[in-house]
Amino acid sequence: MTYQRVALIGLGLIASSMAHAMRAHGLAGEIVGYAKSPETRAVAKDLFCDRVTKSAAEAVKGADLVVLAVPVGVMGEIAAEIGPHLKAGATVTDVGSVKRAVVDAVTPHLPEGVHFIPGHPMAGTEYSGPRSGFATLYQNRWWLLTPAETCDPQALARLRGLIEGMGAKVDLLDVAHHDLVVAVVSHVPHAIAYTMVGVADHMRRVSQSEVIKYSAAGFRDFTRIAASDPVMWRDVFLTNKEAVLDILGRFAEELFVLQRAIRMGDGEHLHAYFTRSRAIRRSIIEAGQDTAAPDFGRAPPPAERA
Amino acid sequence: MTYQRVALIGLGLIASSMAHAMRAHGLAGEIVGYAKSPETRAVAKDLFCDRVTKSAAEAVKGADLVVLAVPVGVMGEIAAEIGPHLKAGATVTDVGSVKRAVVDAVTPHLPEGVHFIPGHPMAGTEYSGPRSGFATLYQNRWWLLTPAETCDPQALARLRGLIEGMGAKVDLLDVAHHDLVVAVVSHVPHAIAYTMVGVADHMRRVSQSEVIKYSAAGFRDFTRIAASDPVMWRDVFLTNKEAVLDILGRFAEELFVLQRAIRMGDGEHLHAYFTRSRAIRRSIIEAGQDTAAPDFGRAPPPAERA
Repeated sequence: MTYQRVALIGLGLIASSMAHAMRAHGLAGEIVGYAKSPETRAVAKDLFCDRVTKSAAEAVKGADLVVLAVPVGVMGEIAAEIGPHLKAGATVTDVGSVKRAVVDAVTPHLPEGVHFIPGHPMAGTEYSGPRSGFATLYQNRWWLLTPAETCDPQALARLRGLIEGMGAKVDLLDVAHHDLVVAVVSHVPHAIAYTMVGVADHMRRVSQSEVIKYSAAGFRDFTRIAASDPVMWRDVFLTNKEAVLDILGRFAEELFVLQRAIRMGDGEHLHAYFTRSRAIRRSIIEAGQDTAAPDFGRAPPPAERA
Repeated sequence: MTYQRVALIGLGLIASSMAHAMRAHGLAGEIVGYAKSPETRAVAKDLFCDRVTKSAAEAVKGADLVVLAVPVGVMGEIAAEIGPHLKAGATVTDVGSVKRAVVDAVTPHLPEGVHFIPGHPMAGTEYSGPRSGFATLYQNRWWLLTPAETCDPQALARLRGLIEGMGAKVDLLDVAHHDLVVAVVSHVPHAIAYTMVGVADHMRRVSQSEVIKYSAAGFRDFTRIAASDPVMWRDVFLTNKEAVLDILGRFAEELFVLQRAIRMGDGEHLHAYFTRSRAIRRSIIEAGQDTAAPDFGRAPPPAERA
């Protein structure tokens, strides 16, 4: 057991998967949960919490670890509410996809003697809510931590133990660097996917049913990542604005270069460009970050093939 | 048996999957293959062709069905070569992702009495080459045909029988409409995926290893569709230029609107935009064009979850 009592504030995909994983590996004594919605609390009580409370302040009382698993935009408000009720020596972490904004919003509300270790589990599905969690979500996934330089090494080691106990791999990053890296690998890809879905939605010359009917040709992959929780993503874009706008600007430039090559009929440029991206895909498979199965494994396994 | 002799010109993913599927369902008497590369021909002879030839002209002799499965950019050249050798009454089809350019390139070279029925199987994986094919690639996938109004109904019914025999669903479309629809569902999504991979590739402030390491956060889905055959995609963009530039223009506009909302901190706009795209994802799952399993089924099946 890593923590006697863990309080989960917010009970969606990330928190519920943590609860399932902590149970599966015997990492927490008691799991206490809080969510704004009474329905969510009831589901959580049923499925993965020992106890749920009607306020965040109540949930964190006596907890050794408090996990802020709410949208980034409400982290500050929650921190202000729980601050006075935190146990001395407790660790507070969060699971927000953005770190600068969370650090700025949360830190001022935490009393001395409480260890704040910002975190970001890089795992998820396009589903959300307390029923969407499962114990293996973090298996072999990265969980980034962005502790301050002054962070207590023992508190950090303990949290790391919990995370690794759930099957994830921990990396430590600087806050600003974290926010830029995730803008590239996650935030801007999501913005682009939302945009492509938006284009299809507005096409008047191509009926929506055709776009959906023939979506297997590439478009459906965009809709998957564009199906994630709207509140979470709104907050991500509002709070990682600088890095996202930086990368979006680069993307727009790059897109115009490609667009120009298409307009000019520059086949050599296109071929060279497309060839490079194959190599990157290969690196990702080699790094163990995706399956090499065709079509993400949607296609039948090799054994079934003719 | 639907055709006594089928000639496959080009022996990559699409043709090899056709051969495997035709064999599996007993749809063709003899399967003859031609590819430019001797290595490819040898693999094809080994894996799925009854006979391979050293020229396309030789391959089509006596064939009831000729399938042009080469990149769109060389369809015209191949048609010129095989035209004089086609059997009277034979059907010629192609599998190009673009139809206007193929019709314009191929039609002038075909003798009277030969039925040309342009086609586009909307199936594929990110792999290519003669070893990448498998019999179930077309199972439950759309195969679009864009026959001219003057097309012989019997020839069309026969080809349709073959395609449905391989497990695919046939739809008939007008040539221009086809090219616009596929620009939306396939060509522009691919252009965008290539671009995003290009941005990541050029980021000097974010090392490539980090982008790859943390790619599971969304970026890896882009690299999959950006890993397809570079020659095929070069030709697609060169030959469906008009529709692609139209849709890319709309995409750029839409992206700038999103970018502006991020810059202005317009949370309401972002939330509404992201909520709409969820509904489109739902339609795709309902239309049977994708799995509802989280993360394309990369995540464990429900039964294994806690």
